[in-house]
Amino acid sequence: MTRAGSHFLQIPGPTNVPDRILRAMHRAVIDHRSQEFASLGSEVLENLRLIFQTRSPVVIYPASGTGAWEAAIVNTLSPGDRVLMFETGHFSQLWRQQAERLGVVVDYVPGNWRRGAVATELASRLSADDRHLYKAVMVVHNETSTGVTSNIPGIRVEMDRHRHPALLLVDTISSLGSMDYRHDEWGVDVTVAGSQKGLMLPPGLSFNAISEKALSANKTAKLPRSYWDWQEMLGPNRNGFFPFTPATTLLYGLKEALAMLLEEELPNVFRRHCRHAEATRTAVRTWGLEIFCEAPPAYSSSLTAVLMPEGHDADRLRSMILENFDMSLGAGLSRLAGKVFRIGHLGSFNDLMLAGTLSGVEMGLRLARVPHQAGGVTAALQSLAPAETDLKHGTRPST
Amino acid sequence: MTRAGSHFLQIPGPTNVPDRILRAMHRAVIDHRSQEFASLGSEVLENLRLIFQTRSPVVIYPASGTGAWEAAIVNTLSPGDRVLMFETGHFSQLWRQQAERLGVVVDYVPGNWRRGAVATELASRLSADDRHLYKAVMVVHNETSTGVTSNIPGIRVEMDRHRHPALLLVDTISSLGSMDYRHDEWGVDVTVAGSQKGLMLPPGLSFNAISEKALSANKTAKLPRSYWDWQEMLGPNRNGFFPFTPATTLLYGLKEALAMLLEEELPNVFRRHCRHAEATRTAVRTWGLEIFCEAPPAYSSSLTAVLMPEGHDADRLRSMILENFDMSLGAGLSRLAGKVFRIGHLGSFNDLMLAGTLSGVEMGLRLARVPHQAGGVTAALQSLAPAETDLKHGTRPST
Repeated sequence: MTRAGSHFLQIPGPTNVPDRILRAMHRAVIDHRSQEFASLGSEVLENLRLIFQTRSPVVIYPASGTGAWEAAIVNTLSPGDRVLMFETGHFSQLWRQQAERLGVVVDYVPGNWRRGAVATELASRLSADDRHLYKAVMVVHNETSTGVTSNIPGIRVEMDRHRHPALLLVDTISSLGSMDYRHDEWGVDVTVAGSQKGLMLPPGLSFNAISEKALSANKTAKLPRSYWDWQEMLGPNRNGFFPFTPATTLLYGLKEALAMLLEEELPNVFRRHCRHAEATRTAVRTWGLEIFCEAPPAYSSSLTAVLMPEGHDADRLRSMILENFDMSLGAGLSRLAGKVFRIGHLGSFNDLMLAGTLSGVEMGLRLARVPHQAGGVTAALQSLAPAETDLKHGTRPST
Repeated sequence: MTRAGSHFLQIPGPTNVPDRILRAMHRAVIDHRSQEFASLGSEVLENLRLIFQTRSPVVIYPASGTGAWEAAIVNTLSPGDRVLMFETGHFSQLWRQQAERLGVVVDYVPGNWRRGAVATELASRLSADDRHLYKAVMVVHNETSTGVTSNIPGIRVEMDRHRHPALLLVDTISSLGSMDYRHDEWGVDVTVAGSQKGLMLPPGLSFNAISEKALSANKTAKLPRSYWDWQEMLGPNRNGFFPFTPATTLLYGLKEALAMLLEEELPNVFRRHCRHAEATRTAVRTWGLEIFCEAPPAYSSSLTAVLMPEGHDADRLRSMILENFDMSLGAGLSRLAGKVFRIGHLGSFNDLMLAGTLSGVEMGLRLARVPHQAGGVTAALQSLAPAETDLKHGTRPST
């Protein structure tokens, strides 16, 4: 089947790569030991800090987000170290599994996937840990599998209240560049992120932002490491270089992505994602479907997971939407397979792309005979209408 | 103001250029006298005929559509020749003006711009012309300024009924590759087209498809010509070459565009444009606005011009939509300035892009306080839902 027009890539990442970034990447590779490269490297390493809202170093790996997860662990922990993690969804499970494979002992606070990490549960675990066995608290900021966020500043407050010395390691793979996130202000020690979500790049790069405390811990952390070793990175990074071959064209793209985010200005980027998430939830509610996240303060601004009515298969719906309307939506993962679908509304995205996205969902619900009320798109459009104060008034061009 | 996401280029051409064509064009220029070039030239000249539905030659100019208009005139007519034209809108006026500047005498049948060329009027003019003074009948198939089509086979029938020997010259700039058009079967002598509409290319190429009768007329036509001369073109074209430097990268793009149209298959391409035009009209009617074209059989499938309610300025609406939703709509031209706006739904386009487009119009109408009923988008989505027989049933992927 030949497809006309643009594919709607509305999974919660990788996201649509804007033309401007594609063009920036469409250049020949340069010598990664040259001065020209050093300028590129220095610029992206410097500007990247603005996105993490940190003055600390950020390292860049040619790797997927899973690699940056591993880097956060092996750089800060030793074999047998105990950490506290929260079951927020599929990705918290995978991160836990990785930690265990690497020789870390994980206390995993169970959860129903529909709420974020719970501060009261954290408090009781920290209270019980008077010997400070926990070397790290590891949290997923925005669970890509569920559209549920965890309150990172709230976790920091609780750790400070207990004067607990554990490191705070946070996964922001599907929130960085889409939702407000403050590495320094929130007292995070290692922030893990990837290129393919809010940064609007293809997959292939991932990041660690590293606090001073994490750098100190690094000196005594005994997990074996080589590729991921921060010290190997930080030396060459000071001059804009890398210890092994960097993914040059992705760095060209990163330079452009950072320019785009800084031009739009982060508060506007976050506000845009907020508006689109709100409009999406308005559509879901109008359809009479259930938003999977059951705690409104935990709503994600980058994706919305929608629960299917009993007896209706989310994968059949997604497949019909793909075949009839050329739009990819996110599947339910592991225990949510077939039960939810996920609408990605992050990255390079605007009102009319969202209108097309929600229209595809609404037409799909009708085609697949999923019980719902029509009018979700109309309700979303109403929610998108700019407030009177933000309204840009058209001026008639002179004729 | 920084814009996130993709611009919606919904003027009735130039249209959105698909990634596949952009990539095809992104190649170094080759020697236009080489055998490699000859293969490219031969292939596009051959396949282009399939789009015009002709076995006759089609010539390609590095020029805008206005250039191919001029080529049609100077290759077939002599100074002082009389032609019959119909006032269908702004572009019929421009073509008339061009003919007059070149020394042709135009009988211009007046029209209100809201209907196509009228067969009864044609009949009376041809009846009165028993000395066969008319050397050509010149018609715009699809008026880009109004979204009104003229019935080309009907005109041919009328000319045949009068056994009138005039040539039939037709402008298909905004219909070719979007609406059914048959150069041979409809007995057209010169068909004029451009690259930037249904062919999904950037502007820069234009075309003449040339009947045998037009080629004969060419031998005695005395209007001065050099750049546009068909004979200069047709010789080198036989071997895939051009008499002057061709626009190589646009030809790379043309090769890809033809492949895309032939893969989708022309009947599917036309059906797609029909569906989108119908859904657009459904939205316009639901809004309670008036479709500018007042004769349903003359509705265009490539664009819809919408009449503004009295006292409301279309250019202010367009400007607010551009500023608030990053979508370009077509302006009203000359006498329609400020009175209509035009929605382009042609070229590389699909259901969800249309949904985004109509959502932008509906939100714009609300912002600009243009009196209308909400719900146009919802009505359009209902009209877009595939018929039960066309429905693609999703199959659950094996897990």
